[in-house]
Amino acid sequence: MELDAITNKVLDAIDTNGFKQQGAYNLRYNGAALCHGDSENIRIRRKEDKQGIDVYISSKAQGEQVHIPVVISQSGMMDVVYNDFYIEESADVVIVAGCGIHNSGCNETRHDGIHAFHVGKNAKVVYEEKHYGEGEGTGENILNPVTQIYMEEGSMFTLDTVQIRGVDSTKRITDVDMGPESRLFVMEKLMTHDKQTAVSNMEVRMNGEGSSAQIISRSVAKGTSSQTFHPSAVGNALCKAHVQCDAIIMDHAHVCAIPEIDAHDVDAQIVHEAAIGRINNEQLLKLRSFGMKEEEAEAVIIDNFLQ
Amino acid sequence: MELDAITNKVLDAIDTNGFKQQGAYNLRYNGAALCHGDSENIRIRRKEDKQGIDVYISSKAQGEQVHIPVVISQSGMMDVVYNDFYIEESADVVIVAGCGIHNSGCNETRHDGIHAFHVGKNAKVVYEEKHYGEGEGTGENILNPVTQIYMEEGSMFTLDTVQIRGVDSTKRITDVDMGPESRLFVMEKLMTHDKQTAVSNMEVRMNGEGSSAQIISRSVAKGTSSQTFHPSAVGNALCKAHVQCDAIIMDHAHVCAIPEIDAHDVDAQIVHEAAIGRINNEQLLKLRSFGMKEEEAEAVIIDNFLQ
Repeated sequence: MELDAITNKVLDAIDTNGFKQQGAYNLRYNGAALCHGDSENIRIRRKEDKQGIDVYISSKAQGEQVHIPVVISQSGMMDVVYNDFYIEESADVVIVAGCGIHNSGCNETRHDGIHAFHVGKNAKVVYEEKHYGEGEGTGENILNPVTQIYMEEGSMFTLDTVQIRGVDSTKRITDVDMGPESRLFVMEKLMTHDKQTAVSNMEVRMNGEGSSAQIISRSVAKGTSSQTFHPSAVGNALCKAHVQCDAIIMDHAHVCAIPEIDAHDVDAQIVHEAAIGRINNEQLLKLRSFGMKEEEAEAVIIDNFLQ
Repeated sequence: MELDAITNKVLDAIDTNGFKQQGAYNLRYNGAALCHGDSENIRIRRKEDKQGIDVYISSKAQGEQVHIPVVISQSGMMDVVYNDFYIEESADVVIVAGCGIHNSGCNETRHDGIHAFHVGKNAKVVYEEKHYGEGEGTGENILNPVTQIYMEEGSMFTLDTVQIRGVDSTKRITDVDMGPESRLFVMEKLMTHDKQTAVSNMEVRMNGEGSSAQIISRSVAKGTSSQTFHPSAVGNALCKAHVQCDAIIMDHAHVCAIPEIDAHDVDAQIVHEAAIGRINNEQLLKLRSFGMKEEEAEAVIIDNFLQ
């Protein structure tokens, strides 16, 4: 089906792989499924009891993608959606989610996506999620994602999450239970500006022997925006984790990082690093000596930092 | 005056500089001042309204020491004491505190030392505090120190705190307010064994321009003991802080580190590192290849780590 210009623009921002109406996909638009398709190995079913979908990914899915973007252009909408993903043993899949709000009104627009991933033995999942807000309206754009991940033995999960811009308020909750020999990679990138607020709480429980987690968070806070990170790595078995939070603070912004490392097992090895500071002055001077304006130079450094 | 053998043994453990009844000193014993002396530049006065002393350190004190140990050998004692330190501009002083409990009974023995340091402009203070418990009794030894530090412009404070062993439960609170160009160094070392518990909460507020803080925590948890660290570095101005927590976990112990770095100013530069892990295996093997027993080798590595 034909999509309007605003929807296409928002989709371009939140789905950098390129959203197409083919293979397995589901486009949620203003609180309802607008178009949807299955592939041979990935089936998407609408939930009967509440808003949302169940996505069944079979073992035969190897290197397949499924795209499930959400676009909201109706100012004042409050959309709560529950999506469950059942990934069979040894499947290998890329799930591209993301939510974009075009708010041209004066009302608060909000999307809460509660996503649960049931990751089978030895399955391999890459989950990409981009959050974005735009529009000439004065209404706030609010995104509160909840991500629950249950990892069976030997599975691998990559969580690649980005908040691009235009999100006035976000409260992120990520909760992971890890089985034996499972591996988790988290890359969280966040940019806030003006008087935006962002809170990200994450708890990773390494319950299975040989599990490992790498969590990287990079953020930039501009204007009078405020960010709080609270990642927690809990080691309940022989396991390894590395948590790293880096933030650039600008203008009159506020960044607070409260990483928690919690070892309950003598063979848990958990390391954390965090740094908050202003933009690198030497880089800034170098770029300005190439003739860039201060703002341009800052933009280059920030883009690089968030890549 | 002559001190008994137990008191001397406990004093040796908590005052490694060597406690002498000369210069400025105050020995608190079983809830009361046992002996006390002033020096020309350091006066110690008993508080009128509650338990504790006021220590006045004049600008003329340069390189002087004051020793104020606490010894408790009466099982079942509950001792709460308030000590205030007034350090004049440009003074340079070493304050040696520390508390040792010899518990030969079946009752809980507890000492809460609430210490406040008013550090004048450009003054230089080293504060050493050792905590220790011993005795053949079954009663618990509890130490809950509260340390409040107010640092004026250009002052320097070194907090060197050690919990040696024998402390069944501790809850430490450290609170620091830093003026312009002031410098703080914290070195916290903690060893817990058996079913001991330790909680350390620290908040350092860098309010003054050019203030800097270095906080290092090293701990070893053995047996089924449990430790929780929550150091917080708050940057309210141009400032620098480095927080580092390293812990060795053994047996069935539990260590949790929740460092918080909180930047409210674009010129606040705050870095944190934390690591929890088991004892270094290579070092262990090396020492054992020299003929050491496993326990001996472990003791050497732990001693080194806590030096």
